[in-house]
Amino acid sequence: MEVPSFSSLEFNQNRSLQEQLQQYLTEWICSGRLVSGTRLPASRRLALELGISRNTVTTVLEQLRSEGFLESMPGKGVFVSAVLPKDIKGLPQVRWTKKIPLPALSDFGEALNQTPLSEHSQILPFTPGMPDLAAFPKKTWLQIQRRHQDRIPLMGYQGGQGYTPLRESLSEYLRLSRGVRCTPEQIIITQGAQQAISLCAQILLNEGDPVLVENPGYIGARKAFQARRSELIPCPLGANGIDVDLICNDKIKNAHKAKLMYITPSHQYPLGGILTAAQRLKLLDWASTKNTWLIEDDYDSEFHFYHKPIASLQGMAEQTPVIYMGSFSKTLFPALRLGYLVVPEALAKVFIKAKSFMGGESPLLTQAVVADFINEGHFVRHLRRMRLLYQDKWQHLNTLLSDELSENVKPIAQSAGMHLAIEIPYVNDSKLKEAFNLKGYGSSALSSYFLDKPSKSGLVLGFANTTMAQREEGIRVLKSLIKPVK
Amino acid sequence: MEVPSFSSLEFNQNRSLQEQLQQYLTEWICSGRLVSGTRLPASRRLALELGISRNTVTTVLEQLRSEGFLESMPGKGVFVSAVLPKDIKGLPQVRWTKKIPLPALSDFGEALNQTPLSEHSQILPFTPGMPDLAAFPKKTWLQIQRRHQDRIPLMGYQGGQGYTPLRESLSEYLRLSRGVRCTPEQIIITQGAQQAISLCAQILLNEGDPVLVENPGYIGARKAFQARRSELIPCPLGANGIDVDLICNDKIKNAHKAKLMYITPSHQYPLGGILTAAQRLKLLDWASTKNTWLIEDDYDSEFHFYHKPIASLQGMAEQTPVIYMGSFSKTLFPALRLGYLVVPEALAKVFIKAKSFMGGESPLLTQAVVADFINEGHFVRHLRRMRLLYQDKWQHLNTLLSDELSENVKPIAQSAGMHLAIEIPYVNDSKLKEAFNLKGYGSSALSSYFLDKPSKSGLVLGFANTTMAQREEGIRVLKSLIKPVK
Repeated sequence: MEVPSFSSLEFNQNRSLQEQLQQYLTEWICSGRLVSGTRLPASRRLALELGISRNTVTTVLEQLRSEGFLESMPGKGVFVSAVLPKDIKGLPQVRWTKKIPLPALSDFGEALNQTPLSEHSQILPFTPGMPDLAAFPKKTWLQIQRRHQDRIPLMGYQGGQGYTPLRESLSEYLRLSRGVRCTPEQIIITQGAQQAISLCAQILLNEGDPVLVENPGYIGARKAFQARRSELIPCPLGANGIDVDLICNDKIKNAHKAKLMYITPSHQYPLGGILTAAQRLKLLDWASTKNTWLIEDDYDSEFHFYHKPIASLQGMAEQTPVIYMGSFSKTLFPALRLGYLVVPEALAKVFIKAKSFMGGESPLLTQAVVADFINEGHFVRHLRRMRLLYQDKWQHLNTLLSDELSENVKPIAQSAGMHLAIEIPYVNDSKLKEAFNLKGYGSSALSSYFLDKPSKSGLVLGFANTTMAQREEGIRVLKSLIKPVK
Repeated sequence: MEVPSFSSLEFNQNRSLQEQLQQYLTEWICSGRLVSGTRLPASRRLALELGISRNTVTTVLEQLRSEGFLESMPGKGVFVSAVLPKDIKGLPQVRWTKKIPLPALSDFGEALNQTPLSEHSQILPFTPGMPDLAAFPKKTWLQIQRRHQDRIPLMGYQGGQGYTPLRESLSEYLRLSRGVRCTPEQIIITQGAQQAISLCAQILLNEGDPVLVENPGYIGARKAFQARRSELIPCPLGANGIDVDLICNDKIKNAHKAKLMYITPSHQYPLGGILTAAQRLKLLDWASTKNTWLIEDDYDSEFHFYHKPIASLQGMAEQTPVIYMGSFSKTLFPALRLGYLVVPEALAKVFIKAKSFMGGESPLLTQAVVADFINEGHFVRHLRRMRLLYQDKWQHLNTLLSDELSENVKPIAQSAGMHLAIEIPYVNDSKLKEAFNLKGYGSSALSSYFLDKPSKSGLVLGFANTTMAQREEGIRVLKSLIKPVK
């Protein structure tokens, strides 16, 4: 057998010659470039040819021999092992030099394969859901972090439910500020809101179970339910969010069959609207009669300008069929990847178990920092500051819109918090969004939040992370892009 | 209607009187303590009774009115709203003062409910899987972190696949040191190894699909498959890890039906063993013939003392039906919660989509720090240092075992890396583990790694995170606990 020229091998400085030589030889053997039975040059000659020490060469040859790639025959030399091709007939030519077709995916995988890959939210002016990152009290945050960063126990594990001091301070915060009835034992710390919803889907839904969702509504939630192959039942909105009367009066087909309902009662996403206490009680009553789980996503309850949000649905009675959820992505910052669930006591363990299967616990250092941030009052102070800041930005945006775009655009005032939904009748909002994006601005198309035929077109503009200049310039750009149809 | 005494309300200093009063009144109304039609005292009187300003009282009453809890009748006063109880008959008495039975869980949730809650790994001497946390180069780590911690883009989102520079440095590391064939586009950053396996289960398995697993083997993987309600097919081990011949010669019932196989070929968990190149090729051949996915968990490949691990199964041909996975929990530290998958190019998108449904992306700052840690050579240096350190600890532990426990204990040398599996014949290892735990030491029972009747009893001792004194004291304690049966 002819041996390929070893002198063509190139070595770099970044790692050991030994590793590199071993990798080259393994590759040559696996790819069939060095077929079995080939005799290798003697180690001395090989070392000369490669320009490396003989010691390195013999170490590598010994390693490859111990792995079964090479075999040495006393007095004859070192050969590429004969065992490989004997066991797996014709292997190098037929199979391992070309691509093998891959096995099939699961039905879920196949279905997913057909859906478009959603772009991630770039941090652009007007990208919805982005808080004012520059206004985050980084200094305080880092001070707290310094206290914890050398604590060795925070490098290990502490259990899937979440860091105990964080669950303690969070439960107090939720009790006081959101009227949630909870003990630290009912809280599950999650990887953001998305894992929270996904856990609910796994634990509460069988494949194919019907789920009631707001329409328009939050896309992330729908995706988590679709991953469970749920049948989504869209429910239109009334004046204050989801239309409770339609549901309770049985005006929505199959609503009574829903195993679960996902709602944003404190601030409907994306159009705003706060369910009144009467509507909440009605909904609770309906859910308990129909045996339906309610997932209460307390989205954006922190940033209301009109009224303070009312207390959570979850807390309206001693035990409700409500799973309460929230996240720190908007109140602190998105990259934290921390969210939380408040589940009925009886369900805490099953949620912890499911979480341990899906992804385990959240980083402890981050949890410790957030716990102190809440405990020491920074969280509430930060929220208060942001509420005022966002209100100023919102008023400015409103002024701009009414000055520049009042003819074509109708802001949906109650949507305000960190974003403003604006209605732009008769516009292809997906195209408008793309055009706006090409100019360097984020937004979402209002139509994209609808499950069926959209009844509104327009944009969702996140204003929390915009500067005054960006708002002014952005609205000018938007004006130039909207071509009035009438 | 009689009005309860408001003077019993207690206010604390920690948050605004307004919030507290609002919460009290809402609770009283919801709980039926203040039934509808009740007339509230005039705001001036209420303020006096409560000892707070009238302004605060009127603000709260106005808020509750706007939420529909109260209604004002001109000239008559403010009343608890009549709308609530009319719509929801008899609500306060019947439903909302007691617990409502909860709706059912999913079949998965019910099944999970029946399983025991596994304890989390406490950081004790000998807890398996725990690296030497005190030896971690924290200073270097924090230096890198300081460079990144003020970067605002790292507070937002960057996409579910993972931070690009991390995928770049990781792909280079995996190519060079593990022979993995990959580009950054094939890498998916996950929340530890557990999410990696869970994603594979979702994307590659339908509910109930058979899965081949090593026996004894890694419990976390089995749990992820069981969450998908997979039928687990146990495969015994041979001298070098999973018994490839048994599989390929059709000696394992239903093995040919397996949709997926989970293996730790570089260092079988928990007993050690490295599949030879010939066995690997044979397995690849079998998998491609049977259309079976292989999940290659490259567990602990970094800490071999006998031989260097051979290159990955994934990299043995241009395209293999292999999903390669690893994590930074052992090479850096567990609380990082970072793992990775290398998937065939054609599958990258479906994995990114599934991940975005299950929990979204991993914290960006952490990813940025790990990227630089690898890029600047700290990672490889750290691994080299740990390899030497762990080898010393292992040798010390071996000496102790042969000096103190040679009669009852047989160390399984090839298991060594960060743990040592020791066989202790005729012992109830679960009880031994518990007794050892009561003395303040971690360990796992060897029998717990078996799917069916255990063929071995003993303990798995993680020695990486032990000091010399802990090893000495620990083995003395262990000796006192093992009661020879013979």
